[in-house]
Amino acid sequence: SGDLVSGTLGSALLSEFGTEIVIPICAVIGIVFSLVQWYLVSLVKLSPDQGGCSPRNNKNNGFNESLVEEEEGINDQNVVVKCAEIQNAISEAVLCVLISSFRELHLSQQCLSEPVSLPPEGQHPSFSLNISTWVSSWLLLQSWIFVFLGTVEGFSTKSQPCTYNKEKMCKPALATAIFSTISFLRGAVTSVVSGFLGMKIATYANTRTTLEARKGVGKAFITAFRSGAVMGFLLAANGLLVLYITINLFKLYYGDDWEGLFEAITGYGLGGSSMALFGRVGGGIYTKAADVIADNVGDNVGDIAGMGSDLFGSYAESSCAALVVASISSFGMDHDFTAMCYPLLISSMGILVCLITTLFATDFFEIKAVKEIEPALKNQLIISTALMTVGIAIVTWTCLPSSFTIFNFGTQKVVKNWQLFLCVAIGLWAGLIIGFVTEYYTSNAYSPVQDVADSCRTGAATNVIFGLALGYKSVIIPIFAIAIAIFVSFTFAAIDNAGGIAEMAGMSHRIRERTDALDAAGNTTTAIGKGFATGSAALVPLALFGAFVSRASISTVDVLTPEVFIGLIVGAMLPYWFSAMTMKSVGSAALKMVEEVRRQFNTIPGALVMLTPLIVGIFFGVETLSGVLAGALVSGVQIAISASTTGGAWDNAKKYIEAGASEHARTLGPKGSEPHKAAVIGVTIGDPLKDTSGPSLNILIKLMAVESLVFAPFLATHGGILFKIF
Amino acid sequence: SGDLVSGTLGSALLSEFGTEIVIPICAVIGIVFSLVQWYLVSLVKLSPDQGGCSPRNNKNNGFNESLVEEEEGINDQNVVVKCAEIQNAISEAVLCVLISSFRELHLSQQCLSEPVSLPPEGQHPSFSLNISTWVSSWLLLQSWIFVFLGTVEGFSTKSQPCTYNKEKMCKPALATAIFSTISFLRGAVTSVVSGFLGMKIATYANTRTTLEARKGVGKAFITAFRSGAVMGFLLAANGLLVLYITINLFKLYYGDDWEGLFEAITGYGLGGSSMALFGRVGGGIYTKAADVIADNVGDNVGDIAGMGSDLFGSYAESSCAALVVASISSFGMDHDFTAMCYPLLISSMGILVCLITTLFATDFFEIKAVKEIEPALKNQLIISTALMTVGIAIVTWTCLPSSFTIFNFGTQKVVKNWQLFLCVAIGLWAGLIIGFVTEYYTSNAYSPVQDVADSCRTGAATNVIFGLALGYKSVIIPIFAIAIAIFVSFTFAAIDNAGGIAEMAGMSHRIRERTDALDAAGNTTTAIGKGFATGSAALVPLALFGAFVSRASISTVDVLTPEVFIGLIVGAMLPYWFSAMTMKSVGSAALKMVEEVRRQFNTIPGALVMLTPLIVGIFFGVETLSGVLAGALVSGVQIAISASTTGGAWDNAKKYIEAGASEHARTLGPKGSEPHKAAVIGVTIGDPLKDTSGPSLNILIKLMAVESLVFAPFLATHGGILFKIF
Repeated sequence: SGDLVSGTLGSALLSEFGTEIVIPICAVIGIVFSLVQWYLVSLVKLSPDQGGCSPRNNKNNGFNESLVEEEEGINDQNVVVKCAEIQNAISEAVLCVLISSFRELHLSQQCLSEPVSLPPEGQHPSFSLNISTWVSSWLLLQSWIFVFLGTVEGFSTKSQPCTYNKEKMCKPALATAIFSTISFLRGAVTSVVSGFLGMKIATYANTRTTLEARKGVGKAFITAFRSGAVMGFLLAANGLLVLYITINLFKLYYGDDWEGLFEAITGYGLGGSSMALFGRVGGGIYTKAADVIADNVGDNVGDIAGMGSDLFGSYAESSCAALVVASISSFGMDHDFTAMCYPLLISSMGILVCLITTLFATDFFEIKAVKEIEPALKNQLIISTALMTVGIAIVTWTCLPSSFTIFNFGTQKVVKNWQLFLCVAIGLWAGLIIGFVTEYYTSNAYSPVQDVADSCRTGAATNVIFGLALGYKSVIIPIFAIAIAIFVSFTFAAIDNAGGIAEMAGMSHRIRERTDALDAAGNTTTAIGKGFATGSAALVPLALFGAFVSRASISTVDVLTPEVFIGLIVGAMLPYWFSAMTMKSVGSAALKMVEEVRRQFNTIPGALVMLTPLIVGIFFGVETLSGVLAGALVSGVQIAISASTTGGAWDNAKKYIEAGASEHARTLGPKGSEPHKAAVIGVTIGDPLKDTSGPSLNILIKLMAVESLVFAPFLATHGGILFKIF
Repeated sequence: SGDLVSGTLGSALLSEFGTEIVIPICAVIGIVFSLVQWYLVSLVKLSPDQGGCSPRNNKNNGFNESLVEEEEGINDQNVVVKCAEIQNAISEAVLCVLISSFRELHLSQQCLSEPVSLPPEGQHPSFSLNISTWVSSWLLLQSWIFVFLGTVEGFSTKSQPCTYNKEKMCKPALATAIFSTISFLRGAVTSVVSGFLGMKIATYANTRTTLEARKGVGKAFITAFRSGAVMGFLLAANGLLVLYITINLFKLYYGDDWEGLFEAITGYGLGGSSMALFGRVGGGIYTKAADVIADNVGDNVGDIAGMGSDLFGSYAESSCAALVVASISSFGMDHDFTAMCYPLLISSMGILVCLITTLFATDFFEIKAVKEIEPALKNQLIISTALMTVGIAIVTWTCLPSSFTIFNFGTQKVVKNWQLFLCVAIGLWAGLIIGFVTEYYTSNAYSPVQDVADSCRTGAATNVIFGLALGYKSVIIPIFAIAIAIFVSFTFAAIDNAGGIAEMAGMSHRIRERTDALDAAGNTTTAIGKGFATGSAALVPLALFGAFVSRASISTVDVLTPEVFIGLIVGAMLPYWFSAMTMKSVGSAALKMVEEVRRQFNTIPGALVMLTPLIVGIFFGVETLSGVLAGALVSGVQIAISASTTGGAWDNAKKYIEAGASEHARTLGPKGSEPHKAAVIGVTIGDPLKDTSGPSLNILIKLMAVESLVFAPFLATHGGILFKIF
């Protein structure tokens, strides 16, 4: 880890003062735009007699094309009677959850038992145990950060030479411990707020979308899109603003010690994603396990709140990884604040681009039929990707010097600004390609899902085999896209610079919000958005991995050494272990053992994720930990992609049969036919895969990587005690 | 790649002359013992009116405990009538397949259409297309070996300096090309013969075992065990003998150039495993796709012939890998023939140990009840592992000098004989542990399978989820066992020396033969054997990988370089791609598209496996290829273990319900109950996983590794053209 020397050529067009102003302005624009969208959604008036359930009775000849999806196994007559009641119950339950402040992600019993009583065989879930487990493990993590990072220099309060520039004095390790803990807290709170807002908006918007659906597809689309945009913009802008303010506050103490400053900032990413894990998995399990009302509450908690936290986590992690890399490049050396804020400026540009793109959907074009929705969403993605490519170019050429150096595993690498532009842009386009591939494999407009539907003729078993095979196959092209993106960034910049890409992929998440909102209104696909999530799931951990390796002063991770190889093979096993636990939880939950399973779940998989990097790092050292991270990354990405695609394909195969939109589909239906029954089995299997295992895996990988990064100074100093003994 | 210097201390007790005699003698002992066992099996007389089908009618109260498994979906009355007929048809079909010399693994139409006609909806499979595709691709591979290896020095017939000892002259690359082609052919032919014999023995033994089952469990056990032993011993002894003869013949030309000699010998491993892939996968697909008769033929072709070839492939590959490593260690340098033959001497010892162990099962103890079979098999494994540990110690101390050097990625590493002993022994014991873990997860005597059976109460979907989760979970302990084994060998010797372990794991396969034979008689578990196969699936490719890396003169495989990282992530994707194709083939086959699918299958996945190492090596170079191999290894092992375990667990969950042996099991049954139907769906999904995907994956990984090793000289010289251009 040689000292850094400056290698900057040319200077940025945007001044430091300009940067200080541009970033918060963009964040505020995002927040204001989001509030405007919310206001527009709220204009749809909701009166109590309009329960939004009537589309169930349209064309009820066994097939349906309605926007509102039907519940399985409920007699149609009962549905109509219970509909308004249920609608109220959900709102009340969600509200109740929202009010009980510490329990955002955990439903307490009183939130569920009234006004509609649960079926006799269902057990009333009481999660008081979980809340305490969860809060305590969270506090534990917080104290670990403080203790482990504090011990790096034995809680010394004296300044010390910097890691990358021995001639300068940096702030003591104790300061890093304290400020990391603070930024961890800020990240966690922002994450909870993101989840909270997402949940509130979703509850608020769903019934309104349904109501608008009666007036026509176009109106419903706009309402759904807007409510998605509310969360997307609020989340992104809020995350950016909080991060930016945190940096500026920390700067008051750190002053010129940017190395320490951005090291402390990584806690923000860990805080954000640690919340996401619990939100996502908890909600996912709950969604599948419980009954009608609980299910809907679970949907809101797991899908929306979990996703909100998840997206925020990705955003925070990728930003932090990119900032750490920037801080040890020549930007950090030269104290070039504008270039240093490149990741945040890209995010700011993202907010503006998405704002324009949103107007295309809501104001410039009009949707007239259900079949126009998918193309409209695709256009959104293409427009935003194209505009963002221009946006990245603008940010790159105005904010970066024409040539600079990046710290590349102990050596300096000279990078030109156009090379960094290419790195970021290729990540963005890789995301788009992955999105379209995912869509091809999960949309019932194409042959893969139709084949899966067709396989239902011969029963549930062939349906399952076909679905699993489809999921495995869907991995191929995304992996090549990811590999190419990685290769280009590696070659032009350094591994580290995948930070830039990851940042982009994270940004693109906001687009996903909208498709998801539409899905809540009963629509077709979240696939493209999931494609972006996939790209981010591979690239964010890679960026974090790069930052970790730099921070831990590792210069090679050689597969031919035993330390790394065993790390690699054990790391590749972790996603299976984790999947087994999340899937089994769902399975067991179906067997009405909700409570015990949730307790076990929150304790065990949480511990698995949180303890693995620490145990591996402390006992086997940073080389083995690098192997574990690489192994978990390369194996986890595949399982996550295939699980999500398989689940999505089964879901849409069932919908394809139910809709009966083509001659072929009608030969398989109607509802209740043998092929349809087989399709339903597929959906039941697929739900835990796509709602719990798949998304949780993304978080697992990211969380392990960001945790390794946060604890890197400690592990590099005190880790590997087993090898030191022998 | 520095030149090798000798580092031998002390000398072996066994003289070169002794080695020359001991190995063939042990091989011949194995062959003779195998023939004796065959004779003993043949003493069971088979008369035409004893069709062996009658146990079907015993205790037919919905549950059955008979040794002969019932066919699904066939009316009992019809079964009795058709039974003798079918039995004949199978024998005739298999015989027919055996007779048509070039078509051993591919059933021609006339072998199937008589004397029992196929059901109307079934298509008569005609595989003429496949045979030609397959033979031609095989010939293609052969010509590649010749052409690619020939071009290393431009088909020069002049001697050249050796790779590891520049002062010595070695035989020209053209000689390596010719002799590699010859050894490839010998390997392929031996593999076909192994498959042929296995198939013949299985057909011969199955009906006899069934007949003996009428006389009592003990008799049936001995017959089944003996017929398994026939194939096990024949295969091992024959493989050893052919390899030994090949080495001695090649020595006539190569003389002192052992480097070239053992490089050419690697073709033997590639030949052996390339046959295994087609045999295993072809048979697997066929088994699942076709109807009663074809199914039984498919079983014989796929399971027995495929497995025979597979085992032979593992044996040949691991021996070759170990020999290559030995040839560039100080053994090869000093021309210490006894030490050089260490891998073969271990195999010879294995034959003797297994011979003694077999006597324990057939002559020293007697089985009196069905429930004694599992403990007896477990004892077999424990006895053979314990005896073999002593055997390894004897071979190590009599055949190796007390200290020697091993080529360790460009450097020399001094290894003591007790360290090598530990490496080999830990591999053996890791195999045993994996075996017992696999058994725990797939035997219906333990809670995992009982939980899966229990989950059938709530339908097929929970059964599938539980089964998949169980499979994922079963990966954990084996991976730790493998990781520890790898770490110990890495640390004490070098990566390379996993060759020793792999060799052992390969040897232990022979034990598996027997358990499989018993399964054919309707018995419980092949799990332990599969555990050994798993160990071998991880360790054989690792040994080959080590040999490849040495041969391609790579000194580090650094994950932090773009070449390696993209290799890693793409390599981890390959098992999914391959699984998707094999699973989908089975699914499609069930939809009666047998023929097209088989054609596609043989062409596409075969091409995927065969072309990947060459394309990656030629275009991206040996570093990326190392990444691909490491990625495929770490990800493929997990999928292979989980697929096999999941399939096995579903199978036994169904059997558990059918047998109704406990109070709990009876609440789930009898046959035809809803839980039983759910269990049947699990079995249908699990069969392609455990019979096709799982085992084929093992072959995929090994084949890619051995192919890389064979082509290493070519790829190291001419590979990586894409990176050379840019």
